[in-house]
Amino acid sequence: MDLSMNNPVSKTETSTMRNGRSDILVAFQGDHGAHSEAAAKTAFGAEVKTMPCETFAEIFEAVSSGKVTYGMAPIENSLVGSIHQNYDLLLEWQLPVVGEVNYRVSHALLARKGSTVESINKVYSHPVALEQCREFFKAHPKMKPILWNDTAGAVKMVAESSLVNAAALAGVSAAEIYGMEILKEHLEDQPTNFTRFLIIAREPEPFEGESKTSVVFSLKNEPGALFKCLSVFALRDISLTKIESRPMRQAGWQYYFYIDFADSAHSERGVKALDHLAEIAPFIKVLGTYPTDKTFANHEH
Amino acid sequence: MDLSMNNPVSKTETSTMRNGRSDILVAFQGDHGAHSEAAAKTAFGAEVKTMPCETFAEIFEAVSSGKVTYGMAPIENSLVGSIHQNYDLLLEWQLPVVGEVNYRVSHALLARKGSTVESINKVYSHPVALEQCREFFKAHPKMKPILWNDTAGAVKMVAESSLVNAAALAGVSAAEIYGMEILKEHLEDQPTNFTRFLIIAREPEPFEGESKTSVVFSLKNEPGALFKCLSVFALRDISLTKIESRPMRQAGWQYYFYIDFADSAHSERGVKALDHLAEIAPFIKVLGTYPTDKTFANHEH
Repeated sequence: MDLSMNNPVSKTETSTMRNGRSDILVAFQGDHGAHSEAAAKTAFGAEVKTMPCETFAEIFEAVSSGKVTYGMAPIENSLVGSIHQNYDLLLEWQLPVVGEVNYRVSHALLARKGSTVESINKVYSHPVALEQCREFFKAHPKMKPILWNDTAGAVKMVAESSLVNAAALAGVSAAEIYGMEILKEHLEDQPTNFTRFLIIAREPEPFEGESKTSVVFSLKNEPGALFKCLSVFALRDISLTKIESRPMRQAGWQYYFYIDFADSAHSERGVKALDHLAEIAPFIKVLGTYPTDKTFANHEH
Repeated sequence: MDLSMNNPVSKTETSTMRNGRSDILVAFQGDHGAHSEAAAKTAFGAEVKTMPCETFAEIFEAVSSGKVTYGMAPIENSLVGSIHQNYDLLLEWQLPVVGEVNYRVSHALLARKGSTVESINKVYSHPVALEQCREFFKAHPKMKPILWNDTAGAVKMVAESSLVNAAALAGVSAAEIYGMEILKEHLEDQPTNFTRFLIIAREPEPFEGESKTSVVFSLKNEPGALFKCLSVFALRDISLTKIESRPMRQAGWQYYFYIDFADSAHSERGVKALDHLAEIAPFIKVLGTYPTDKTFANHEH
């Protein structure tokens, strides 16, 4: 098990380092005005330079090649669950996680100027955004949800089209960018609609304060294998903040387990727990140790 | 904890009961020709009557109201992971799981007669289907994947449209139904591309043979809580075949855990394990005990 990639060089406050640095460029998926771009501004300051990418894979490529400083990988939404593709990409690429952001997601109904709520019968947006507004669509059966590649892209498309009766579901920041009207705000089913982003970089970064570590491992094909793996944390009173299983793409119903735990990979008990896990799990990869974002405290398992 | 809903009445071979019964009507999501319909035919025989539904929720409504005998709920795909909405619906509705089907999914490129692979630059399909063919789209950058509500619906739309250069990604059975040409077969990234369906009914059903049980529970907010819950199975040598965590829609980062284990909820150790789990978990619901489908053996944790 190689933990060297996550070894902090020195202890400095990361957020201080990041905020206000003019040489930072952050890659995000979607068009300008996307929730991911807004999350990048939360993490790095409103003036940060951003680079839109069409796919999540492009973000990882841009970080790896040094074209950008950081990448925003949305990993989990509190309403719809995990964004699986980014779990796969974290496993595929050798890019450490250096931070997390819990970003409050709110969706608005955006349409061309002069439209009214009553005139809309088609609503374009990303499948996950549409999914987060199930109750709104139940209450407005006239409006048909239509899948689109990303939220801000849907706004752009409606803005540039001659589509009548069409709207897009997106963050309000997209309204100004594309000159659209906000017909309705806060359409999401629950006000506690957060998306958790992992920030990826080429190198691990030093930081101070409370740590979280993301690790992925596989299991031996025997009863109790997952139980044994979790024991390495439970026996040391290390809290898990997340567990996720992902089928291995090559192996039918076999799984990778992604775990976040509330400690550093370099603390005494963190090192011991990971060494212990490596004894039990056939495969283990530490994705990174990074400062906990306390915007919306995670549940402890 | 009420397990009565899953109590088998007597031991009879389920598949014998089901196959060939002409009074069976099975609800599935999508249009005729969808993979879900093909999975229903695998489970109930090629002549079974089927009812297309627009959404997964409609399937649960149709079973609950008695409009159909069974419903097909796709729950997990070996390439892209879980179909979260059906986990939520299983929790919401009081409909027992009475069976599972591991269905081999294969996607073909279907277009209107006279089209050629070279002429296609737009490919419509369900996001999950497109996701399963990532490598194909990498190898064919000219073809742009476009999201559609369901695979067979995309075929229907292309068939009925005047779209030139368009194709749909769907199962081959949709080609005949909509009079389309099969331009290319087996586009999925891995030949081991299976979707696991749970079969829901109004009442539990008797069966013989190897059992599997699906159960959902929540955790106390304390370190080691998940570990303690898994101990009820590990200490009794009961294999877990699947674990999935889903954020509670009302409670930010708190999770429900869905577990499948390789035994009956009514066997001696099954009853004991579930009683023990009820001592530890604040919430527990048994979704059903049903015969294991061995088409593609699950991994044991």
